Amino acid sequence: MKHQSGRHFLQIPGPTNVPDRVLRAIDGATVDHRGPEFQEMSKEVLAGLKQVFKTRSPVVIFPASGTGAWEAALVNTLSPGDRVLMFETGHFATLWLNMAKRLGLDPVLVPGDWRHGIDPAQVEAKLAEDKGNSIKAVMAVHNETSTGVTTRIAEVRKAIDRAKHPALFMVDTISSLASIDYRHDEWGVDVTVAGSQKGLMLPPGLSFNCVSDKALAAAKTAKLPRSYWNWEEMLASNKDGWFPYTPATNLLYGLRVALKMLVEEEGLDNVFKRHDRHAEATRRAVRAWGLEILCLNPAEYSSSLTAVLMPEGHSEIRFREAVLERFNLSLGSGLTKLRDKVFRIGHLGDFNDLMLAGTLAGIEMGLELTGVPHKKGGVDAALDYLVHSETGGGRKRAAA
Amino acid sequence: MKHQSGRHFLQIPGPTNVPDRVLRAIDGATVDHRGPEFQEMSKEVLAGLKQVFKTRSPVVIFPASGTGAWEAALVNTLSPGDRVLMFETGHFATLWLNMAKRLGLDPVLVPGDWRHGIDPAQVEAKLAEDKGNSIKAVMAVHNETSTGVTTRIAEVRKAIDRAKHPALFMVDTISSLASIDYRHDEWGVDVTVAGSQKGLMLPPGLSFNCVSDKALAAAKTAKLPRSYWNWEEMLASNKDGWFPYTPATNLLYGLRVALKMLVEEEGLDNVFKRHDRHAEATRRAVRAWGLEILCLNPAEYSSSLTAVLMPEGHSEIRFREAVLERFNLSLGSGLTKLRDKVFRIGHLGDFNDLMLAGTLAGIEMGLELTGVPHKKGGVDAALDYLVHSETGGGRKRAAA
Amino acid sequence: MKHQSGRHFLQIPGPTNVPDRVLRAIDGATVDHRGPEFQEMSKEVLAGLKQVFKTRSPVVIFPASGTGAWEAALVNTLSPGDRVLMFETGHFATLWLNMAKRLGLDPVLVPGDWRHGIDPAQVEAKLAEDKGNSIKAVMAVHNETSTGVTTRIAEVRKAIDRAKHPALFMVDTISSLASIDYRHDEWGVDVTVAGSQKGLMLPPGLSFNCVSDKALAAAKTAKLPRSYWNWEEMLASNKDGWFPYTPATNLLYGLRVALKMLVEEEGLDNVFKRHDRHAEATRRAVRAWGLEILCLNPAEYSSSLTAVLMPEGHSEIRFREAVLERFNLSLGSGLTKLRDKVFRIGHLGDFNDLMLAGTLAGIEMGLELTGVPHKKGGVDAALDYLVHSETGGGRKRAAA
Amino acid sequence: MKHQSGRHFLQIPGPTNVPDRVLRAIDGATVDHRGPEFQEMSKEVLAGLKQVFKTRSPVVIFPASGTGAWEAALVNTLSPGDRVLMFETGHFATLWLNMAKRLGLDPVLVPGDWRHGIDPAQVEAKLAEDKGNSIKAVMAVHNETSTGVTTRIAEVRKAIDRAKHPALFMVDTISSLASIDYRHDEWGVDVTVAGSQKGLMLPPGLSFNCVSDKALAAAKTAKLPRSYWNWEEMLASNKDGWFPYTPATNLLYGLRVALKMLVEEEGLDNVFKRHDRHAEATRRAVRAWGLEILCLNPAEYSSSLTAVLMPEGHSEIRFREAVLERFNLSLGSGLTKLRDKVFRIGHLGDFNDLMLAGTLAGIEMGLELTGVPHKKGGVDAALDYLVHSETGGGRKRAAA
Repeated sequence: MKHQSGRHFLQIPGPTNVPDRVLRAIDGATVDHRGPEFQEMSKEVLAGLKQVFKTRSPVVIFPASGTGAWEAALVNTLSPGDRVLMFETGHFATLWLNMAKRLGLDPVLVPGDWRHGIDPAQVEAKLAEDKGNSIKAVMAVHNETSTGVTTRIAEVRKAIDRAKHPALFMVDTISSLASIDYRHDEWGVDVTVAGSQKGLMLPPGLSFNCVSDKALAAAKTAKLPRSYWNWEEMLASNKDGWFPYTPATNLLYGLRVALKMLVEEEGLDNVFKRHDRHAEATRRAVRAWGLEILCLNPAEYSSSLTAVLMPEGHSEIRFREAVLERFNLSLGSGLTKLRDKVFRIGHLGDFNDLMLAGTLAGIEMGLELTGVPHKKGGVDAALDYLVHSETGGGRKRAAA
Repeated sequence: MKHQSGRHFLQIPGPTNVPDRVLRAIDGATVDHRGPEFQEMSKEVLAGLKQVFKTRSPVVIFPASGTGAWEAALVNTLSPGDRVLMFETGHFATLWLNMAKRLGLDPVLVPGDWRHGIDPAQVEAKLAEDKGNSIKAVMAVHNETSTGVTTRIAEVRKAIDRAKHPALFMVDTISSLASIDYRHDEWGVDVTVAGSQKGLMLPPGLSFNCVSDKALAAAKTAKLPRSYWNWEEMLASNKDGWFPYTPATNLLYGLRVALKMLVEEEGLDNVFKRHDRHAEATRRAVRAWGLEILCLNPAEYSSSLTAVLMPEGHSEIRFREAVLERFNLSLGSGLTKLRDKVFRIGHLGDFNDLMLAGTLAGIEMGLELTGVPHKKGGVDAALDYLVHSETGGGRKRAAA
Repeated sequence: MKHQSGRHFLQIPGPTNVPDRVLRAIDGATVDHRGPEFQEMSKEVLAGLKQVFKTRSPVVIFPASGTGAWEAALVNTLSPGDRVLMFETGHFATLWLNMAKRLGLDPVLVPGDWRHGIDPAQVEAKLAEDKGNSIKAVMAVHNETSTGVTTRIAEVRKAIDRAKHPALFMVDTISSLASIDYRHDEWGVDVTVAGSQKGLMLPPGLSFNCVSDKALAAAKTAKLPRSYWNWEEMLASNKDGWFPYTPATNLLYGLRVALKMLVEEEGLDNVFKRHDRHAEATRRAVRAWGLEILCLNPAEYSSSLTAVLMPEGHSEIRFREAVLERFNLSLGSGLTKLRDKVFRIGHLGDFNDLMLAGTLAGIEMGLELTGVPHKKGGVDAALDYLVHSETGGGRKRAAA
Repeated sequence: MKHQSGRHFLQIPGPTNVPDRVLRAIDGATVDHRGPEFQEMSKEVLAGLKQVFKTRSPVVIFPASGTGAWEAALVNTLSPGDRVLMFETGHFATLWLNMAKRLGLDPVLVPGDWRHGIDPAQVEAKLAEDKGNSIKAVMAVHNETSTGVTTRIAEVRKAIDRAKHPALFMVDTISSLASIDYRHDEWGVDVTVAGSQKGLMLPPGLSFNCVSDKALAAAKTAKLPRSYWNWEEMLASNKDGWFPYTPATNLLYGLRVALKMLVEEEGLDNVFKRHDRHAEATRRAVRAWGLEILCLNPAEYSSSLTAVLMPEGHSEIRFREAVLERFNLSLGSGLTKLRDKVFRIGHLGDFNDLMLAGTLAGIEMGLELTGVPHKKGGVDAALDYLVHSETGGGRKRAAA
């Protein structure tokens, strides 16, 4: 592969485009994580995160990928053999299921077609059946990165409440947090799992648990062995701005800047509106091309990515390779069940109308280049929407 | 003005998009400009520049804007009252003319309509008239940044030769070097003037004179006072990799990387081909919109920028402001005579197909947004050309 | 605290001073971790790491702190209730012990005075007693970051061999790898644990397991639950340059550069020699001040840090605060048992003679400033040694 | 030469150590220099500079080295053949003299021994002799970078006043501004010349003229040809935050941060006090070594650098080479008359006590290494002063 001129278009659904300001912050000299300068920063960051999760509960930061935060959610709250209710909404939900099995839990799996989110009615039914409250937790992926389908978390919460079931509610927001509206407290979530490399506009390497009082109480009796992921020591240290082991200092520098950009400068509501607009514009392009969106229920469309079905007999792998080679554009691949069948367009993170236009242009030209049957006019349809739809307020200018 | 999310599209015809690798190089710790590490770098850079100018003559680097390199060309070779033949091809040719007057030269101006390059026949005629060889230099702007019109330098050289006139030949390549084919030696140019912030993909702050033997000989008798711009001391110091006064160290770090990218990795021929393709795609978009390209002669189209006439009664200023505010895209303005009449699209420097697609999308939406009469389909026309036209080879991958 | 001018002296025993080139590499745009550019880099990095561990076995990279790599070593090889032989050499050995307990292992602890490394004779004796081979692993910290005492790993290996005991041998090299000679294969280590933020000259956020065939075989039957830390999936993915979950892309960029600097440019033997010299110079300073080095056995002196006892009745906490406030120098604190009793001088990572001179000057002035009884001349003693001792070869110059 | 580990000690008297924050600022994406974001920055920077020059007059910024700002001072205010009073205080004063000659001026040179600043009495005497006021300007170098000798500018001003002479007063502050107290308005200076790469803590590439009303008036009638350096157009454009030709955008980003650090965070008085302390500590080290300081008059000691005489028969060139090779420390060389006779220690810019300690340690070890006769104890003498002398306030911490 040859390196091409100009900027790479990183339109996988994460890691996302990291703003230059965040990269420059990460590039700062490493400091003493037991010194006053670090302490001040970590207090600021721990406070800022609460605004993004919309919570008054503590948020734990792990020097780890999102997968680590999945593990932390499980080992802190559950005991070997515990039953947990899980839903086959896609590749990542399946990976979380596999993790639960490996850790010795006993998942109850509700199968799915990878084209819908979790059905709240099924949640209610499953829990209603569980007379003895043997199910200890309900696990949901808010935004399935492999399918571009969201689950309506507020509705799932209501279903749990209707079933009057005491199970913990754990939600993976890895590809939704800071892109799609999410409310840890209002929606009664017990453990929210998140990562740095999507809506938070950072490189990968940090992950998060937002932890309710109920989850903390569960941790007192949970028997899965844990040490690195242990909330207790972490929260005790965090109180004064410290960490029980060496934190990923430089990524935290970046997090401080990213939080400032999202919360203070652009404002979360504008961030969500921006993602909604780009998702709608993308779907209009897909429809204009005559291609099919994987997500079947418009109420479950993802605002952070769109998965598109390749026409029968055409390889998404070859298509993406051609697009990367010729147009310097990375798109997401089809995963496991969807291998070679869908490609995924990431439109989340630090992004704007013209980056989207370039992305869609690359796809439209790529379809042409690789002989994938399609109609022209996808880019036009997107532009037509973008120019006429109302934008959120822009980001406020940063102080020097 | 609010700061918007995502990357800014800097599509003025320079300064251009600076590659991240170049910015990171500039960000290196400043070193002793009298030490061995600096010496090695400056030798490498001085050698590399010759390949870009296609010359065996020395290239002088000034810590200055391109305007400084204009002044250097004049003060090193000419004496007070010298007649120089100049051509009104646009705003920058006019600025150079004004400079010549201020420095006490006596320019002979051939008027122009700002929509054509220099007519070689006129050059021949003017020089043929000058029986006493009172004209000491012919000054040409290779690529008029204000108009998007190029002058065919090889043809002007032939015209000078046909007139058998001994005048020096000085060419401003500020917005063409490393974007449009240019050959200092083959075309018999005596002083080539260039700057860092266009095809060389650097921030502004460096400028260049490439100097023929004939120009060096002229310097021996030239009487305009000079000190900062003096080639003699500069060339004497440069021989060993030194400079007579403090050079702009950190920009030179960037220059080293930029030369590597242009000459070794992508290859100059591929660089030129890339600019040609983007210029042609841009013109197809402009025609599809039903707008008029300022440059009237297709043989003189610029590959680094395209100036577009606004329809009568519409303000390019308002248009560009709207495009900046809404789409985070900077376009070039109309200068002096062309004020509020044309906007300019820069498609030079570190650039690719999808960045161009985003740029044209921003313009097409901007025309819609500000009610400028146009037809749709400009972006489509460009994409149709881009996907079907042959690309040059990509840049070879950089070593780690 | 006020921010002071000039560079901070980060002389804690890690995180260490990160070279500018490494920081700039980390600052690169995040790429697709499923794309060819990433794949090429990860293959290069995985191969380079083997040279640093001196092994032909695979090295696993976790997006985690060193503490995570401790956990990985345990959960991949051991089963609940397994006995492991551990040694109280200092704070970090104790933390590893606590982790083993939490994960359900049954550590046999050999107490220690925090001023010596592991006694090979004790290892032999303890294993010889264990007739039934109930001890499944011997755990050693190569370089105790809390005390500045090393354990002679080759001798411990010989002791295990003399006892003809089949236990796995696991070694923590978090603060020794790439600072002090270490040989995974030659010394018959089964799991080596390491982190990014010390000798590898990176910010914190990556950690490592180097895994012998014997350890891999043990992993087949080990029953501790594991998922994030699971070697099996990791090694399967790594074969082709991939990772089973999102890796910490940008820190890997830095690792690539750091490996190049250590292995190709300076050479590991020169790196070790440099650390030895700086450690010896530091000890001479300490002795000249009339202070006591914590490590009692010269054969066990650490080359990456030196812990110094404060005179009775004087607080190291107040001393370090004063030094930070007045001289912009961070020193390591006394940990748990040693709290307020020792301060630690880090002299590892990207470091040189004059940085050491500045560090020792800060300490000498700090002792004066805070009224700690001492003799002058520590800096002089160090300089005298530095100027007269033989240096290793310097780092070879990097290509541009 | 081999590249050494750790940080380079750049202790030439400029370019100086550039703070990381300034380098990171310079590394920002280049913007449109005709757009609102740039305009806002340039207004801020132009205002901030006035505080550093202590003036209400305008400060002009050239994309050029300091040498360019010398030329600007002359060509804007003088006419061919004008007499100017100059003083041979050192190498740079001599270069300025040569420039004046080349530009067609008629300098009256007062010879000097390179070990003293300008004698105010001589200024008065020379001007008093000039009954016809044929001398148009008095030129002074505030701090001679080649000798480490300052001229007392306030005293020179008084001398001019006593002589009641109308000559313009021009002062080069290239290596003093923002390191040593300087007051453009209070001291009645007409043109102050400065550069970016010394006290302003930037890489080279920007230079400055601070211009009094009297100088502006002189510009109206001055007849030296000028264009690039022309104040008139520059000041007209600057009023609205623009520049008449492309400014060095990225260096201006750095300037904004540097001004913030100097004026708001540390405060100029603290900056001056810091330089005074480091200069005094350096002189104490030099005296302890038994070496001779070039500057003979303590009232004229420079706070930004110290020039040291090598003992007869010893080469400063060999000494500096050894120090660079072995200790990664760059010192300043002896220039022209002083070639191979003095070395210069820069202690200006972004600097602190421990960086100075490292620098002096490198010198003391270098003297030993190269067999230069000296006494030990220079570092000790410096430390003794540093720990007991009162520091200014530190820099206030920057907002995130």
